Amino acid sequence: MIIILKKDAKKESIARLEEILKEKGISTNHIQGVNQNIIGLIGDTSAVDMSNLYAQDCVEEIKRVQEPYKKANRKFHPDDTVVQAGNVKIGDGSLQIIAGPCSVESESQIITTAIACKEAGATMLRGGAFKPRTSPYSFQGLRAEGIKLLLKAKAETGLPIVTEIMSQSDIDLFADVDVIQVGARNMQNFELLKALGKVDKPVLLKRGLANTLEETLMSAEYIMSEGNANVILCERGIRTFETMTRNTFDVSAIPLLKQKSHLPVCADPSHATGMISLIEPMSLAAIAAGADALEIEVHNDPKCALSDGGQQLTPAMFKEVMEKIKGLCGYFGRKIG
Amino acid sequence: MIIILKKDAKKESIARLEEILKEKGISTNHIQGVNQNIIGLIGDTSAVDMSNLYAQDCVEEIKRVQEPYKKANRKFHPDDTVVQAGNVKIGDGSLQIIAGPCSVESESQIITTAIACKEAGATMLRGGAFKPRTSPYSFQGLRAEGIKLLLKAKAETGLPIVTEIMSQSDIDLFADVDVIQVGARNMQNFELLKALGKVDKPVLLKRGLANTLEETLMSAEYIMSEGNANVILCERGIRTFETMTRNTFDVSAIPLLKQKSHLPVCADPSHATGMISLIEPMSLAAIAAGADALEIEVHNDPKCALSDGGQQLTPAMFKEVMEKIKGLCGYFGRKIG
Amino acid sequence: MIIILKKDAKKESIARLEEILKEKGISTNHIQGVNQNIIGLIGDTSAVDMSNLYAQDCVEEIKRVQEPYKKANRKFHPDDTVVQAGNVKIGDGSLQIIAGPCSVESESQIITTAIACKEAGATMLRGGAFKPRTSPYSFQGLRAEGIKLLLKAKAETGLPIVTEIMSQSDIDLFADVDVIQVGARNMQNFELLKALGKVDKPVLLKRGLANTLEETLMSAEYIMSEGNANVILCERGIRTFETMTRNTFDVSAIPLLKQKSHLPVCADPSHATGMISLIEPMSLAAIAAGADALEIEVHNDPKCALSDGGQQLTPAMFKEVMEKIKGLCGYFGRKIG
Amino acid sequence: MIIILKKDAKKESIARLEEILKEKGISTNHIQGVNQNIIGLIGDTSAVDMSNLYAQDCVEEIKRVQEPYKKANRKFHPDDTVVQAGNVKIGDGSLQIIAGPCSVESESQIITTAIACKEAGATMLRGGAFKPRTSPYSFQGLRAEGIKLLLKAKAETGLPIVTEIMSQSDIDLFADVDVIQVGARNMQNFELLKALGKVDKPVLLKRGLANTLEETLMSAEYIMSEGNANVILCERGIRTFETMTRNTFDVSAIPLLKQKSHLPVCADPSHATGMISLIEPMSLAAIAAGADALEIEVHNDPKCALSDGGQQLTPAMFKEVMEKIKGLCGYFGRKIG
Repeated sequence: MIIILKKDAKKESIARLEEILKEKGISTNHIQGVNQNIIGLIGDTSAVDMSNLYAQDCVEEIKRVQEPYKKANRKFHPDDTVVQAGNVKIGDGSLQIIAGPCSVESESQIITTAIACKEAGATMLRGGAFKPRTSPYSFQGLRAEGIKLLLKAKAETGLPIVTEIMSQSDIDLFADVDVIQVGARNMQNFELLKALGKVDKPVLLKRGLANTLEETLMSAEYIMSEGNANVILCERGIRTFETMTRNTFDVSAIPLLKQKSHLPVCADPSHATGMISLIEPMSLAAIAAGADALEIEVHNDPKCALSDGGQQLTPAMFKEVMEKIKGLCGYFGRKIG
Repeated sequence: MIIILKKDAKKESIARLEEILKEKGISTNHIQGVNQNIIGLIGDTSAVDMSNLYAQDCVEEIKRVQEPYKKANRKFHPDDTVVQAGNVKIGDGSLQIIAGPCSVESESQIITTAIACKEAGATMLRGGAFKPRTSPYSFQGLRAEGIKLLLKAKAETGLPIVTEIMSQSDIDLFADVDVIQVGARNMQNFELLKALGKVDKPVLLKRGLANTLEETLMSAEYIMSEGNANVILCERGIRTFETMTRNTFDVSAIPLLKQKSHLPVCADPSHATGMISLIEPMSLAAIAAGADALEIEVHNDPKCALSDGGQQLTPAMFKEVMEKIKGLCGYFGRKIG
Repeated sequence: MIIILKKDAKKESIARLEEILKEKGISTNHIQGVNQNIIGLIGDTSAVDMSNLYAQDCVEEIKRVQEPYKKANRKFHPDDTVVQAGNVKIGDGSLQIIAGPCSVESESQIITTAIACKEAGATMLRGGAFKPRTSPYSFQGLRAEGIKLLLKAKAETGLPIVTEIMSQSDIDLFADVDVIQVGARNMQNFELLKALGKVDKPVLLKRGLANTLEETLMSAEYIMSEGNANVILCERGIRTFETMTRNTFDVSAIPLLKQKSHLPVCADPSHATGMISLIEPMSLAAIAAGADALEIEVHNDPKCALSDGGQQLTPAMFKEVMEKIKGLCGYFGRKIG
Repeated sequence: MIIILKKDAKKESIARLEEILKEKGISTNHIQGVNQNIIGLIGDTSAVDMSNLYAQDCVEEIKRVQEPYKKANRKFHPDDTVVQAGNVKIGDGSLQIIAGPCSVESESQIITTAIACKEAGATMLRGGAFKPRTSPYSFQGLRAEGIKLLLKAKAETGLPIVTEIMSQSDIDLFADVDVIQVGARNMQNFELLKALGKVDKPVLLKRGLANTLEETLMSAEYIMSEGNANVILCERGIRTFETMTRNTFDVSAIPLLKQKSHLPVCADPSHATGMISLIEPMSLAAIAAGADALEIEVHNDPKCALSDGGQQLTPAMFKEVMEKIKGLCGYFGRKIG
């Protein structure tokens, strides 16, 4: 961390600043510049709160040099993390395909869809039981009942299940779920993240709608710092000025997160684009960019879906997309599942 | 709501779409255009899920005409809502000044600050007990203990207190709090919003970092639809590409929210700018734009603050800002408190 | 186009509005709703200025139904446009690789780099003669001299050249250039676009830093409406809140532009990411997403580059990336060049 | 400027880097940290191109410490710049009101509007002769003829005129204009900025739609570095995710630009909000925040306007807004004109 001092910084003020730092075990090093004086901080500054140092009279600006994430940082953990989710591994070089409907709507819907997804080549099943909706008047999910139906679909197909949690008070309902998903709107619900850090279960953490990759890694850090190292990061599109797509799919987040962190990276072209015609090209792009898993929305009858009808593939469309995915995985020498 | 049909839409598909709509009590009206055919929907479409209609073959695009918020909408509730918070009223033409530290840190800190704020003219006390921090390694707040200290400061000064909730499981701790704040990162924590809708207490709802005003009003709608009409909206800055300020203070949100909704509107220049030198001009701008309340961070000793040290005013600075605020309120014929 | 009327719209005001529309050859169709009355416009509304209609008393909101671009619209021109640039074709199913330095710096630099690029498999040469720089104190390019050096490199290697124009007053200098590039900052320099519409030469139009795809297509429309149909669209990254990458590469723009328009689409992973370590994965992602061309920065000695040193590949790095590109093109059955 | 070295940086590479810097007259200072080594740069680094230094092997990250703008920087020019525009002064503590139509449409329109504006209290006249429009099919302005009409209106009313330039090839047409405006879309049209730097005439520089304040100041620097110090900065709203307003009016830019720079600052509530109902509150907010001038769109008959009809005030509305403006200026002890 580097502190740029004000032009007219007083000696006493600088001395006071250095004392505060010394108390935190940090020593300092001065650079006398022509226009600007600078202090370099030596020691572990990851716990230093930048916003507080700004309160010191002498401080003009503070620049962070070290990354603030530790446990999620590849620098301190060079090997890839491989997450075991039910009978599949995420992050070992294979590609996992997490398919299923936006919402769990009924027993027949989820079981029919799960069977179709498995037949087409999916290796995990997704489905929303708790649904975060912008409007209180939209379908809010089957909640506890939805999780029961997912478990029935798992019993039927053997596919591990991924489903979203919206509140730590529901955590017991997720006991038999294979991967707990944290949605984009809860990426900085820190109380929920802390609670998930105490659970012995993989967490699929979606990037927030307007969050940076560093913030995403800091949210992973929340989970990991409580003891749960089984975090899968997920790029699902960010908010930009573009209006044709639902969000903007930041494909470059995939290789970049893998460079900065050892955690596996999933991509969700369905939410990232919101357009059926983009699922295939963007799935292929995500694989070419190195994604460890893809999450794709499939519904046995999208025309009757209770949510996100317009971005869910039919089983027939999904089968076609899977053929292309299988082809490209073959070219890259990666196995699915 | 208006549905633009695909050029090659089939009759059966259109008939099916109309049947779905009829089941929801909505009738339709056709417009045959030269390049495009359109269906206008007649009836209450606020509960119609746009994303689902996209799944119908014949649909190219859907455009909403009605605003999706009802209870928060001025159209259906022309009179201003006045929220009673302890002994003060928000939204009755007066200006409320909510001052206090970012975090509650100790008994002496909060009581000293509260007394200084009251002396300078503040009418309510703020202070964070539960702190949402990007990093798990930053100070997380005194939590339950912090609320106790706020209540002591209230007993000492008589100022009603405003403090932030981060999880519905903590709701009982807020029994004696006057206004419960929902922070920007939780604006779309829908489970929390629903829980607060069942509480008989004012809620100060902060706009999310990258959320639109419509989304903000929809979050107010979540609270209101559960029965709690005492919602105060709060503009606290949005994320933009500007880096000099912490956020960008959308001052125009103040008059616009008051035009679209009957709810009172608060503004938080401290978080919106993150710069001490901007608190005074932006407080005045917010008043000129019609804010019902201002939330300003004040700390008895910012240099020792455990969070946000760089944007908190000293009591002396706050007193100066209050003189300017009092002057401008006098000009506009508005009383403080 | 659809016009939503105000609740209290007066008959005379509506009559006036309809008269204005009739003068433009547009007839209207009314939908009487429960909460809202709507007018549907029938006729060619692409020349109707939405902002003006808002001035009519009775208008609450206007929603566009038709796309405002015509000549660039695939609906009215279903076949792919193929642009001939020197001896290569862009948009015919092949992949073109446009490689070269950020800036032309000297004869030896551009010729050495051009030869290395060609040997590695590049099919076109890029190089900046006119350089748009944020600071007036940064290197501004060799200007006219730079174009002369590019032409020498073309004579040496046979590679068609692509270089950026910054002002229509320089247009004569580009007489022997194969493709004229319009940079992101000039995407809405409408006077320049009009001037390029009168030139008989392909234009590579880069998407602006914060522009939508519709705005990009409208800028293409400016060029095309003046008579020049040889436009290549280029995704080069948009501004988002992410700070690790220089911009955010909107890979989904590639297939989406190709769905909405018949024009060929280029992608520039160098500017889109600004990170050498991302050029390879993002080049592959762009190909998987269907790009017709890639623009990649290569410099014979990046350490001595006068601009963008940190994102330019060395010839050796470029050769490695090209091997991966060739492999993937082979898999997709696409030829390079 | 500070350079953070890679963990495994080689001695030779660091030596090379230091040599490059020495050639530019910059000496260095090392900080040996626990996790990171850093080099502090001593000397004038404003001309050092950060992007180039990234090409050096040893460099991990570069952080700028000094502001890159010099001539526009208040640090090096503490006194306020006062710009003389015709018979009025901008930046001397007074408030200037620049009113007039979006576009000049006819002699009677501009003269009628100019007279009405003057009567209501405007001190300068605006009007677009060259119009930057997203669509080539929208009204493009009367161009040279429009400037002639503006000069007639000036002759009639004595109001100095402000009008926009779109290309340096038109510069001679602006010989009798009092202030040349550079629009948001041309803020980084560097060739135009350079040309305006050679003109002896005030330039009103509008902030770009997605540009930072530092970039705005760097564009002012382009003009000033060529010799023209008469630059007026203008906040006119930035692009955000908000859709209710045309742009988001960054009111905080007003005091912040005045803190960072000595140049006068204008605000344009018409373009910043695009909503008639927001012009009054946002004009007052801009004055409370310290604006030196306001630019407000007024049209003698907005219902017949050829552009931006929906955001232009009628003379009667403008008169009402002016009453409020005069009142507030009176309170602040500022004179208009």
